[in-house]
Amino acid sequence: MSDKQKKPQKLKARLPRGFVDRSAADIHATNEMTAKIREVYERYGFDPVETPLFEYTDALGKFLPDSDRPNEGVFSLQDEDDQWMSLRYDLTAPLARHVAENFNEIQLPFRTYRAGYVFRNEKPGPGRFRQFMQFDADTVGAPGVQADAEMCMMMADTMEALGIKRGDYAIRVNNRKVLDGVMEAIGLGGDDKAAQRLNVLRAIDKLDKFGTEGVKLLLGPGRKDESGDFTKGAGLGDEQIEKVLFFVGIKDYAKSAAQLAALVAGTAKGAEGVDELNAIRAMAMGAGYEADRIKIDPSVVRGLEYYTGPVFEAELLFDVTNEKGEKVVFGSVGGGGRYDGLVSRFMGQPVPATGFSIGVSRLMTALKNLGKLGQDEVIAPVLVTVMDGDVESMGRYQRFTQELRAAGIRAEMYQGNWKKFGNQLKYADRRGCPIAIIQGGDERAQGVVQIKDLIEGKRLSGEIEDNASWREARVAQETVAEAELVAKVKEILEAQAEDRRRAR
Amino acid sequence: MSDKQKKPQKLKARLPRGFVDRSAADIHATNEMTAKIREVYERYGFDPVETPLFEYTDALGKFLPDSDRPNEGVFSLQDEDDQWMSLRYDLTAPLARHVAENFNEIQLPFRTYRAGYVFRNEKPGPGRFRQFMQFDADTVGAPGVQADAEMCMMMADTMEALGIKRGDYAIRVNNRKVLDGVMEAIGLGGDDKAAQRLNVLRAIDKLDKFGTEGVKLLLGPGRKDESGDFTKGAGLGDEQIEKVLFFVGIKDYAKSAAQLAALVAGTAKGAEGVDELNAIRAMAMGAGYEADRIKIDPSVVRGLEYYTGPVFEAELLFDVTNEKGEKVVFGSVGGGGRYDGLVSRFMGQPVPATGFSIGVSRLMTALKNLGKLGQDEVIAPVLVTVMDGDVESMGRYQRFTQELRAAGIRAEMYQGNWKKFGNQLKYADRRGCPIAIIQGGDERAQGVVQIKDLIEGKRLSGEIEDNASWREARVAQETVAEAELVAKVKEILEAQAEDRRRAR
Repeated sequence: MSDKQKKPQKLKARLPRGFVDRSAADIHATNEMTAKIREVYERYGFDPVETPLFEYTDALGKFLPDSDRPNEGVFSLQDEDDQWMSLRYDLTAPLARHVAENFNEIQLPFRTYRAGYVFRNEKPGPGRFRQFMQFDADTVGAPGVQADAEMCMMMADTMEALGIKRGDYAIRVNNRKVLDGVMEAIGLGGDDKAAQRLNVLRAIDKLDKFGTEGVKLLLGPGRKDESGDFTKGAGLGDEQIEKVLFFVGIKDYAKSAAQLAALVAGTAKGAEGVDELNAIRAMAMGAGYEADRIKIDPSVVRGLEYYTGPVFEAELLFDVTNEKGEKVVFGSVGGGGRYDGLVSRFMGQPVPATGFSIGVSRLMTALKNLGKLGQDEVIAPVLVTVMDGDVESMGRYQRFTQELRAAGIRAEMYQGNWKKFGNQLKYADRRGCPIAIIQGGDERAQGVVQIKDLIEGKRLSGEIEDNASWREARVAQETVAEAELVAKVKEILEAQAEDRRRAR
Repeated sequence: MSDKQKKPQKLKARLPRGFVDRSAADIHATNEMTAKIREVYERYGFDPVETPLFEYTDALGKFLPDSDRPNEGVFSLQDEDDQWMSLRYDLTAPLARHVAENFNEIQLPFRTYRAGYVFRNEKPGPGRFRQFMQFDADTVGAPGVQADAEMCMMMADTMEALGIKRGDYAIRVNNRKVLDGVMEAIGLGGDDKAAQRLNVLRAIDKLDKFGTEGVKLLLGPGRKDESGDFTKGAGLGDEQIEKVLFFVGIKDYAKSAAQLAALVAGTAKGAEGVDELNAIRAMAMGAGYEADRIKIDPSVVRGLEYYTGPVFEAELLFDVTNEKGEKVVFGSVGGGGRYDGLVSRFMGQPVPATGFSIGVSRLMTALKNLGKLGQDEVIAPVLVTVMDGDVESMGRYQRFTQELRAAGIRAEMYQGNWKKFGNQLKYADRRGCPIAIIQGGDERAQGVVQIKDLIEGKRLSGEIEDNASWREARVAQETVAEAELVAKVKEILEAQAEDRRRAR
């Protein structure tokens, strides 16, 4: 064995692919956004309920769109008693389990919301993570489409509460029953065609991503992507494909309604689905939500397999520049639909339900693009520097710090190696500290402290050639009695806040 | 095959053991509590940073107290590239990875906090879960014990911010170096005794749980618990045990300091540890934190293996009744300490760090016991009932609901099967709705709505024999014009709020 091999390998600090750390700015923005969403949901009469991250694998079921991955796209492991457990891949399947498990205690309709992490064991890619946050609302025990209509209105209100202007978003609505009718009309009805139907749904769901030509290939023989990977198609013939593409291509529902009705006429579910869509449209309009907010759009599919009726999608309509430098519509930030079969998998009775799920990080990206986040200003702490490192001095610096905190001011004593004073000021600068407090032996003897206005100091050094501003400027450094410390710091912080207000 | 066997087995709705769902009350209480903790940490100059739930198993390391479980107490699975990943078992090991991975971008000292779920693959028991929430704060890049002293002060402030009275809690402080000194003094120094030292630490850590007699057994031959399970002891002799028990039995640090100094005299680390304890005590007192808040207590050990210096524990001192009906001190709600080796496992250089972790659900149990949570009142929504189920009527009920929401009032339209009106009122009752809105055909024709004050109605039916209260009472049901709906509902809600205030 060579020397090189014998050397102990240093442990490498790295995350598994598809997982990321979150910065302070990201966390503040998420909190700001989820607080606004929560406020809307509460106003709609929803209450929070949460489930743990693990479920038994059979209780979750297999409803994921990309089942061509190992473990069916789910992180799973075996418990000690050999039962398989999985990390939840969405928040809907666990809610169904929760309702079924507590059915006797729960008063239906059960209106709840929850935000939490979900996990997909998928191939990670740019902007595609294996852990991400969803924010869901669900009404369980609601048989009528008025509950679906309400979900759509709530999503429209949520978009506006987040500062997204009317016209910049649309809640698009379709119905799986209409889709089923179209399937039946092209000869894909019946239990034996279930797998093929699913492939058709998944192909349609890729319309945003691959366009009509791409979906045509996925509906037919299959499609090869840029990397050379081949996705097998649904194997439809030209005439079948044409009908599917007519349906998903409908832009103006009112104009195409007659042709659509003719297409699904005589199918078991198609006509029922069209009636439901019309009812949702009428109820939304009755409550003042026109087609600029809630829009019937047959191209909406939603990838998850458990939907049984109306499906919805919240789409942002403004342009953003993608990684290739192209202008594209921002697109979907969430969706949902009716899942009447999900709770009843556990029960002897039907339990109708509908819900909506927001993709938190995707919506946050959109809001950042619009400049609608980060309004909550976080001021960095006042830094109490350390000039002397003996226990008694430390106690005194700590006391200054505590006095500031007791007055509600963010403050910290320097906790690094205090011996290099330059490092302390460099730290204050990189951290963006507004003020530094300094007390050396001389000041201590006089019972005073120096207070450095770091923001004014920075401004002064930038404007040094302008004499007028020198005269007007606040003094960047002052010496005050220890007893005056808190009052003086407050005064400077207020002056800085006033400067920021004026600079806006 | 019999008929019985052929019947498809119904899927059972159940959670894996050690996992629980969280109710609305629990979630509101957690949010209320974590908001208060966050406020203290922010005031101390800490910023949020979060890591994902998965880490590579080697990056987490193996520092858990109960390593006698499969998988070393951790949930692990193999990624597609065969590398082992684990769900984090605490928030400290992932932070160490985060700092090491981003070392060049991070300005030290790095002061951060985070709340999140952690996972232990342990035998679940009453009050013992496999998923639970921790709330941590850490200072990385802080070599001096002033950072440890600050952690203790911050924890004391946190307890008081949560409404726990001075005297009802104590932040107890010990030092692993002193413990190491004691070990050396009883002949357990040196690398070859590491395993035995760990067993001694774990025995001491059980002092709260098993008392002195139990720990004596764990330090010696071993201990059999009530179920008959035998835990192997550390195998110490009587004289060794006596010295350990003297050390952990110290109640008044000032009085026993001389005897302790004598015990560890001449050991490599012992004297250094005693100096550090004295410095923490002096600095805390310098900032006004006396022994009623921050107390040196040699019985504190902390189970985790990665601590290298001062260790702390936040203990609640008031009595609660346990499941056996006995009065016991509530005990620990969190702890932490210095972990100078954890970041440097990844680096070529030392990176000193210290931190504190709060057990969120345990602290919440304590606060509930004290009646310090649930102060934030959540009012149930106003219920708009459904008398007619046609699309047009639904649209109108929905419009009433939207008008209430637009005025900031929690409101919902009944989403269950509307045909049984009794179910709607039963729902309103069980949900605690303050008001029900009713409009049948007659009212619609007149353009009016009925507004039922459900709380006043309940009170009236309870006080029906008292004529005076009848006269004073608000009217429990009123008919108003549609245009007056929002104003009238507001008026009733305000009257109800006033009643609640008076009832306090």
